[in-house]
Amino acid sequence: MLMKKIILIPDSFKGTLSSMQICGIWSAKVQEYFPECQIISIPIADGGEGTVDCFLTALGGKKIKTFVKNPYFEEIESFYGLLNDGKTAVIEMAACAGLPLVENRKNPCCTTTYGVGQLILDAAQQGAGKIIIGLGGSSTNDGGCGAASAAGIQFYNKAGEIFIPVGGTLHEIERISFEKCNPLLNGIEIITMCDIDNPMYGPNGAAYVFAPQKGADPKAVDFLDGGLRHLAGILERDLHLNISQIPGTGAAGAMGAGMVAFFHSQLRMGIETILDTVHFSQILSDADMIFTGEGKFDRQSLHGKAVIGIAKRAKEKNIPVIVLAGGVEEDIDAAYEMGVSAVFSINRLPQKFSVSRYKSVENITAAFENILRLIKSLK
Amino acid sequence: MLMKKIILIPDSFKGTLSSMQICGIWSAKVQEYFPECQIISIPIADGGEGTVDCFLTALGGKKIKTFVKNPYFEEIESFYGLLNDGKTAVIEMAACAGLPLVENRKNPCCTTTYGVGQLILDAAQQGAGKIIIGLGGSSTNDGGCGAASAAGIQFYNKAGEIFIPVGGTLHEIERISFEKCNPLLNGIEIITMCDIDNPMYGPNGAAYVFAPQKGADPKAVDFLDGGLRHLAGILERDLHLNISQIPGTGAAGAMGAGMVAFFHSQLRMGIETILDTVHFSQILSDADMIFTGEGKFDRQSLHGKAVIGIAKRAKEKNIPVIVLAGGVEEDIDAAYEMGVSAVFSINRLPQKFSVSRYKSVENITAAFENILRLIKSLK
Repeated sequence: MLMKKIILIPDSFKGTLSSMQICGIWSAKVQEYFPECQIISIPIADGGEGTVDCFLTALGGKKIKTFVKNPYFEEIESFYGLLNDGKTAVIEMAACAGLPLVENRKNPCCTTTYGVGQLILDAAQQGAGKIIIGLGGSSTNDGGCGAASAAGIQFYNKAGEIFIPVGGTLHEIERISFEKCNPLLNGIEIITMCDIDNPMYGPNGAAYVFAPQKGADPKAVDFLDGGLRHLAGILERDLHLNISQIPGTGAAGAMGAGMVAFFHSQLRMGIETILDTVHFSQILSDADMIFTGEGKFDRQSLHGKAVIGIAKRAKEKNIPVIVLAGGVEEDIDAAYEMGVSAVFSINRLPQKFSVSRYKSVENITAAFENILRLIKSLK
Repeated sequence: MLMKKIILIPDSFKGTLSSMQICGIWSAKVQEYFPECQIISIPIADGGEGTVDCFLTALGGKKIKTFVKNPYFEEIESFYGLLNDGKTAVIEMAACAGLPLVENRKNPCCTTTYGVGQLILDAAQQGAGKIIIGLGGSSTNDGGCGAASAAGIQFYNKAGEIFIPVGGTLHEIERISFEKCNPLLNGIEIITMCDIDNPMYGPNGAAYVFAPQKGADPKAVDFLDGGLRHLAGILERDLHLNISQIPGTGAAGAMGAGMVAFFHSQLRMGIETILDTVHFSQILSDADMIFTGEGKFDRQSLHGKAVIGIAKRAKEKNIPVIVLAGGVEEDIDAAYEMGVSAVFSINRLPQKFSVSRYKSVENITAAFENILRLIKSLK
């Protein structure tokens, strides 16, 4: 059987294979078995590290390099993606505010998202009318005040001085002024990719849930949570923005909140952002088959975002969706109702994960290859 | 995609699933997904217990019950299969000479294959022109002399007395007479299914390799080997039959040798016997797909009998062959050249065999079902 157009849109297999890797492996195999087939590779990004590369793989474009501030206000070379339409930029905050960048200086009381604001401005200057910001992997807890400062928003302290708040100085904010906000941002649509539901502060908020892994001890966590609470109070009092309980505002050291408050951004599921940006419903309409997958396919996947999100859109157009997974639980039959055509495990041998994880590349290659072989053998 | 005719021809998954079970599971799933599809189920038999049922499943027919001697010359109800063509009978020697029948009386010095000869005669009396004998699972080491006696062949001792040799009395044979051989056997083709290569006697022979598991201690093993060696000598001296080194003559307590010497039977691979009997090359010609499988698919499988035997015949007619296995090793690419279209593992989760073996039914069901789902989803 011939295949004319195949869409490869895998999620990462957490801990073993990135979505980019999987697209590479699958794509090579499709070329081997169906050399005439059009292949559309859409590695699923989660907003964290690698998000720009995922979008560039899916849609083409270039990586723009530019110097901005790192989490400690030091100049570093960072990057963002400008997609082939020339109008859409993709930024991953990890590229200038990421945890790996602080190495052994982890301290969310001192770190800034200033560079993210600089990247946003740079993209705007390049003519991007739409900017996608991926949250994730941050070293910060500044509620996006650093990025806002870079964009010209001014934070005043009690003494009436302008300063750039970091996690540890959020409580010093007395007043926020949008007056000098950079006009480059006017009319630009900013979309924030955010897959987590945490509110800005409180027991499930940014500080309590995520600051410890960024280097905060329990005392610092309390302090950071207080700072975010204070920021939320100012936003509500002066700007009438009651956003602190919106799911996702607690993402990336409350960068979610900052994106909403300072950049008028919406918070969107990563997968929805990707599917919209690649015009998924359009490109799938003449596809012969869609391949997706994730590390583990279980009941949670049915409530999950990526695979089922894809399947639902494919079902409308009656396009087969084949799922490959590192593990497939038994109770996933409902997936078939949601647009999933078939689910395959990549485990070639009966081995436990501690053994098989080192064979992920071989296993996913062989499993995928044999599916293609099966299809090809059909008349 | 529609399927009009599917052939299911799995080998057993040793230790977890019989080929009959697998055919049952797969067949139900094909009916579910392709209700109009013609299904041909051919569970692969290895000659041992279950062989008659396998043939009856594949070709239809009836089980004939009859009373014959058990390994201790006691009357028991046994059976054989008479296939729907009315001309072919299938006998498994385990049905009257099997190890489970002796329970706690394991002793290959005393046990007989007499009942097997009785079953052969009964089948001949029913009009069978072709009799297939499955070796395997025997409790005996009599070189088939019991079966021969039942067929009228006479064994004389030094005193000139006729006796029925058992493993422990083979060395008493002085002369063998075919004079009173039952004329019912004239012109009947007897085919012996035999998948092992052992010679009649010697270090790789019937006694040394298999008698211990039938209850022989080392001394008895020596004695039994000597008995077989004596029998081979008589066959050579008086009948000019030099068969002791033919691969397979050591099967089932040298029943392989007896079948050749006393019943003029050929020893054939089980899979070849099955494929010929079901007229495989004929029935596959209009099949859409063949499903087969075995417990482990590895380099040995490539030199093996069942799956590759099937694939080679299918390749001639360009029919897709899909293999399912409990484990698939990496170095099996040569199988693709031999007619295998695709190989799938049944492991749904990364689990070691000691865990997954208890999920064999669920796993093989789910893996097979998803292959059908994939096929069905194709346009």
